[in-house]
Amino acid sequence: MLEELKRKVYEANMELPRYGLVTFTWGNASAIDRETGLFVIKPSGVEYEKLRPEDMVVMDLNMKKVEGDLNPSSDTATHCELYRAFPSVGGVVHTHSCWATSWAQAGRAIPCYGTTHADYIYGEVPCLRNLTEEELKDYEANTGKLIVEYFRKGDVEAVPCALCKNHGAFAWGKDAAEAVHNSVVLEEVARMAAQCEMINPRVAPAPQCLQDKHYFRKHGANAYYGQVSH
Amino acid sequence: MLEELKRKVYEANMELPRYGLVTFTWGNASAIDRETGLFVIKPSGVEYEKLRPEDMVVMDLNMKKVEGDLNPSSDTATHCELYRAFPSVGGVVHTHSCWATSWAQAGRAIPCYGTTHADYIYGEVPCLRNLTEEELKDYEANTGKLIVEYFRKGDVEAVPCALCKNHGAFAWGKDAAEAVHNSVVLEEVARMAAQCEMINPRVAPAPQCLQDKHYFRKHGANAYYGQVSH
Amino acid sequence: MLEELKRKVYEANMELPRYGLVTFTWGNASAIDRETGLFVIKPSGVEYEKLRPEDMVVMDLNMKKVEGDLNPSSDTATHCELYRAFPSVGGVVHTHSCWATSWAQAGRAIPCYGTTHADYIYGEVPCLRNLTEEELKDYEANTGKLIVEYFRKGDVEAVPCALCKNHGAFAWGKDAAEAVHNSVVLEEVARMAAQCEMINPRVAPAPQCLQDKHYFRKHGANAYYGQVSH
Amino acid sequence: MLEELKRKVYEANMELPRYGLVTFTWGNASAIDRETGLFVIKPSGVEYEKLRPEDMVVMDLNMKKVEGDLNPSSDTATHCELYRAFPSVGGVVHTHSCWATSWAQAGRAIPCYGTTHADYIYGEVPCLRNLTEEELKDYEANTGKLIVEYFRKGDVEAVPCALCKNHGAFAWGKDAAEAVHNSVVLEEVARMAAQCEMINPRVAPAPQCLQDKHYFRKHGANAYYGQVSH
Repeated sequence: MLEELKRKVYEANMELPRYGLVTFTWGNASAIDRETGLFVIKPSGVEYEKLRPEDMVVMDLNMKKVEGDLNPSSDTATHCELYRAFPSVGGVVHTHSCWATSWAQAGRAIPCYGTTHADYIYGEVPCLRNLTEEELKDYEANTGKLIVEYFRKGDVEAVPCALCKNHGAFAWGKDAAEAVHNSVVLEEVARMAAQCEMINPRVAPAPQCLQDKHYFRKHGANAYYGQVSH
Repeated sequence: MLEELKRKVYEANMELPRYGLVTFTWGNASAIDRETGLFVIKPSGVEYEKLRPEDMVVMDLNMKKVEGDLNPSSDTATHCELYRAFPSVGGVVHTHSCWATSWAQAGRAIPCYGTTHADYIYGEVPCLRNLTEEELKDYEANTGKLIVEYFRKGDVEAVPCALCKNHGAFAWGKDAAEAVHNSVVLEEVARMAAQCEMINPRVAPAPQCLQDKHYFRKHGANAYYGQVSH
Repeated sequence: MLEELKRKVYEANMELPRYGLVTFTWGNASAIDRETGLFVIKPSGVEYEKLRPEDMVVMDLNMKKVEGDLNPSSDTATHCELYRAFPSVGGVVHTHSCWATSWAQAGRAIPCYGTTHADYIYGEVPCLRNLTEEELKDYEANTGKLIVEYFRKGDVEAVPCALCKNHGAFAWGKDAAEAVHNSVVLEEVARMAAQCEMINPRVAPAPQCLQDKHYFRKHGANAYYGQVSH
Repeated sequence: MLEELKRKVYEANMELPRYGLVTFTWGNASAIDRETGLFVIKPSGVEYEKLRPEDMVVMDLNMKKVEGDLNPSSDTATHCELYRAFPSVGGVVHTHSCWATSWAQAGRAIPCYGTTHADYIYGEVPCLRNLTEEELKDYEANTGKLIVEYFRKGDVEAVPCALCKNHGAFAWGKDAAEAVHNSVVLEEVARMAAQCEMINPRVAPAPQCLQDKHYFRKHGANAYYGQVSH
């Protein structure tokens, strides 16, 4: 079932080591089929070289496995919470990519220092708090709930990624490919923000009007970047 | 029309990801044919893997599209301003290359710390101010005008690149290939300047006489670097 | 003799330059056959491109060469001490990998700043003191004894790596492949810890409860990461 | 003439971009034939992809071109001074490799922070002063004379490299291949020293007894590293 979606999720997972976002098995991509309410995710701890499209695991939104011989990614419950809360989220990626994770370990949100950031992410990339010892008992689900809680008050489409303190990065999009794309953006933005602070420790975020200009050049009714009408 | 120039501009664009200057579609190269006054530029938002020479867009210096099925790069107006102002500029490249953009985000000009810099760029690489909210209404053209305004008082051949604050880098040259070359130089120089300040926070620019020696070893009437007579 | 083990040790050594952990001959991997009490190690100073499985040297735990035309790695005595002291150690790797060695040169233990670290290493990566001038007379054996002395009071399985001050890194595991794996983890963790301190100089280690959660998600009786039962 | 030496110098030059030490034409390797007193060097400003063994230029120690259609590297006079002064120098390499050049721009000698450094370089890598305005008139020869002056008081074999302030790196060895090898060592050592100071700004050099141990493990009468007798 969902063979086409499995193939896409497989491809998305394989992009992660290609873009240098994942070492060993430290990442996972998923995508949801909104008609059936089922999502497809990478199996847990399987090496990328050995991964095949048919190894993808099919889950429902109650965290029941619907199809697949292997265990789903240990982070499946986090993906699930995002799909349950936000109908616009069609794909989710989790990585420990080097620069994004360095910010997550540092416990800091990534300020918007330039248009590379503003083209894709409207405002700072949040760094969400540690879970409490109580919350850690249901670690992966509560990680998802923390992200959901934050974006209930925000805009999950305008800020398609978040850092989890002392952990790593999540990114999302309308499908698995866009979630991978946003993971690459996040890593590049994280790297340039760190280098920018190294070059000028007193740097301030980009002017709001420039952030607006770039974000709305690519998104919304008046977008004019690229070839397609918006 | 301009098939040979299209091929050269295509090649120049393809060099950008090869040199690691461009992720996704975050860059563009163009070149002008001074006889017809037409310039050729990459289409907007097309992936590099899918780009073909025939996709290049032909523009005139009044920003009218003369040939091409696709929209030209969203930064076309910036390229256009440079061609209008400076007859010696034959090719232009825009990138968000990592280290150059980190300096642009930091809002600092890159000092000349050594001969790698001095061999190609005479003096510091300027970091141009943010546009005002009013200027942002015609963003790309005004970015070009800002660069032009700066180099009217300077020497657009001796300093073949500039940073735009909170944005990215522009470089130019006598043709598209030289503009790419100068973009690579800029990125390398930006990286070494940042690392150099990390190693010695109180570092001063290279002595002026050393800068002169290296620049004029490669440029001008008494140049003796390479195989061709100058 | 031990042809299968030689092949595995050869493969493990070849992984080191592939993962970017080794330049020239600056690294070595070994593994032990606990039945015979013999271990197999890379020959000294042989280029990786020229290495063949049959070049591996077989040693006993008294540092006598049992088979092999070439001299064993100059670090053989360090490997030997680890095998003598810890029955659970089946493979050992030594590298001068860039970030781990930078911490070793800095003389600092690597704090646990996040879950990438906690997934594999329980607590900080120790940085062992310099040998005394007296101890340097039997340099390689005493390097091993220093590591052994430290882990007699600790847990050599929960912390599968250590830094030697002003020198480099050692990592180990149940076999050569796992020792390579842990060397890659160490390098990645070392890089992210340094970047994390650059982004936030006052950063604190990850909360202990989060470290526990991640370590025991992958290790011990209640582990649930991956496909195999623990 | 000297066809074998030309081939070796060609190979050495081609190693420079492979090891990531050279962008464009920013580097050159040479080697000398002590019997004839002639040395072979890369031509000036020729792209590496287009370089052929027969393009190498043969020079004598009075800076007269003996064979070759092309101009020799603009840095030829620096190489020449080293060959004239030190009979043990058989090959010379000049690069603007990124980390070594960052130290040169910073105007600092590279302290010996660990055994990777001590294995090849006995003590710090010197950073030589800027030339005076007068000395710049004969720039390349005086660069060589400055290096020679420094090593007249030192040991050109024990310290096979030097930085030139605000410029770049020179390395040497018994032949061109060893000079390339030492250039790679220098770049790696420069990188780890910078990162080490970033991790611990108050770091001290490695203890002298450890530096001695490692240097003499590989060099001199009692060396025991590798396969060959010393």
